[in-house]
Amino acid sequence: MIISILGIGMMGASIAQACRHNGTTKRIVAYDINPCHREQALSLGIVDAAYDTVAAAVADVDMVIIASPISTYDSLAEQLRGHLQPHCILTDIGSVKTNIAERLQQSGHTPALIIPGHPIAGSEKSGPTHGITNLFENRSVLLTPTPHTDGDALNTLSQFWHSLGADVSCMDVHHHDRVLAITSHLPHLISYSFVGTVADLETHMQQTDDDIHENEVIKFSAGGLRDFTRLAGSDPTMWRDVFLENDRAVLEMLGRFTEDLIALQKAIRWKDAKALEDLFIRTREIRTKVIEQNQEGTFVPAQSQSTGDI
Amino acid sequence: MIISILGIGMMGASIAQACRHNGTTKRIVAYDINPCHREQALSLGIVDAAYDTVAAAVADVDMVIIASPISTYDSLAEQLRGHLQPHCILTDIGSVKTNIAERLQQSGHTPALIIPGHPIAGSEKSGPTHGITNLFENRSVLLTPTPHTDGDALNTLSQFWHSLGADVSCMDVHHHDRVLAITSHLPHLISYSFVGTVADLETHMQQTDDDIHENEVIKFSAGGLRDFTRLAGSDPTMWRDVFLENDRAVLEMLGRFTEDLIALQKAIRWKDAKALEDLFIRTREIRTKVIEQNQEGTFVPAQSQSTGDI
Repeated sequence: MIISILGIGMMGASIAQACRHNGTTKRIVAYDINPCHREQALSLGIVDAAYDTVAAAVADVDMVIIASPISTYDSLAEQLRGHLQPHCILTDIGSVKTNIAERLQQSGHTPALIIPGHPIAGSEKSGPTHGITNLFENRSVLLTPTPHTDGDALNTLSQFWHSLGADVSCMDVHHHDRVLAITSHLPHLISYSFVGTVADLETHMQQTDDDIHENEVIKFSAGGLRDFTRLAGSDPTMWRDVFLENDRAVLEMLGRFTEDLIALQKAIRWKDAKALEDLFIRTREIRTKVIEQNQEGTFVPAQSQSTGDI
Repeated sequence: MIISILGIGMMGASIAQACRHNGTTKRIVAYDINPCHREQALSLGIVDAAYDTVAAAVADVDMVIIASPISTYDSLAEQLRGHLQPHCILTDIGSVKTNIAERLQQSGHTPALIIPGHPIAGSEKSGPTHGITNLFENRSVLLTPTPHTDGDALNTLSQFWHSLGADVSCMDVHHHDRVLAITSHLPHLISYSFVGTVADLETHMQQTDDDIHENEVIKFSAGGLRDFTRLAGSDPTMWRDVFLENDRAVLEMLGRFTEDLIALQKAIRWKDAKALEDLFIRTREIRTKVIEQNQEGTFVPAQSQSTGDI
């Protein structure tokens, strides 16, 4: 199989590396608008060719994987028009799935061969030099086929991800976007917001002659803040697009979170020790389930280990 | 030096193990109200004796370290009365420092020898079997001496933590509690609250015939939620006490966070792409500083590495 990756950033590079490592593909080509990314991907040897036009990058390939921010999809669909081989599968790895199939159909390609997808894996780093060969091993990949989807194409795409070590499931697009809103989008949003509050503190505090400095905050970040900075260090463009695309589900889940946070705020103000402890016992049970799930899922990520951070 | 640890949970056990490993102490004894903890500490060989009364545990020791939840301090101070040797240093490792020296002075011990402290290190696990020998290596320990503090005692306590590999600083108690509110207490509070929202979703959703299940949420937790569950899996009693003791600083910082979160919510609702991207670029810079600080600080914790979690 010959594949083309549109957008060779951290995710695209990881797919390329994993394909090479697992012998999944005969040839890998890429398109990227950024000449540095093309250069790096070539010099790392993870692609056989890197093009500055979509048309050149998709000629003669069996599968096209879009691995760029969702805001680029409309333009990419336009540039794909008339250039895909009739049997080519068109997929993506975006974190939001509502309306994605419809947008990719603007390419004019056979709807039966357009199958959106989403690997639940990544890193807070950006760019092709940060590709991770085993990124998809024992990770979930969610595919969101449409009523038009061709069974053989779906099978080929599933096999593709399976060959990279992933566990593949199919899911309804709206359900996907609600589940990911709570498991991924909101944790990122909260982290971005909180780290923004931290960044503001330095400026405010210096103006008001108070005494908290950013360096101090960063110095003592092992107490919990560091976990938040990891999520809040994720790619700005990608995440801007996620929140704009999945605004409905994110705003709904954010409403639920805010209600609960305000209830907790009141419990602290009124020194309701029992309410606090009851909540903390319940959340500890969820943690236990997450750990069990990881063990059943045959991997334990490094940050689940105790590391001396509180 | 002979030390006594009052409360031999995960933190107390880590101190004992680190002392053994570094040859810091001649003898380590402990008090714990929980017979299982005493039994485990003895069978692990991390203490030389474990007592069920404070009086027995502090006779003949040069330093007493309180390593139990802050809600136990008043009772412990009462039980210490008349039992400490005149030269004994009395310290603690609690996460909140306002009023701690005053509360420990209820023991009747010389105020000059009472020096509260706080190592910025820990784990989400509880109990003496989860002690970590190198928990304090390259970590910060904050001491909050009072105007009464004896210089030699402060020096002895600093040397003690230094021998366990820690970097020791002194800080004003109120400043400590504000800095820790933002770097540690609020990240924990937000994580507890968010994981509580997740736990509620299962119940609510099943009642309203919607389709998000807890197992599904846990299955896809690698997208960001997992980081939150680690903090929200921390010891319920200890953290209940932290929020009740540091309520003023926590509520102030929580107010700042909530304002920022609501502004972000509005930006999403109004599709203000620039506001989102500007924030995400700023927070990424904070992440970079945290990573740099870690490198300067000579350690990189496991969860700062890319692990395949988004």
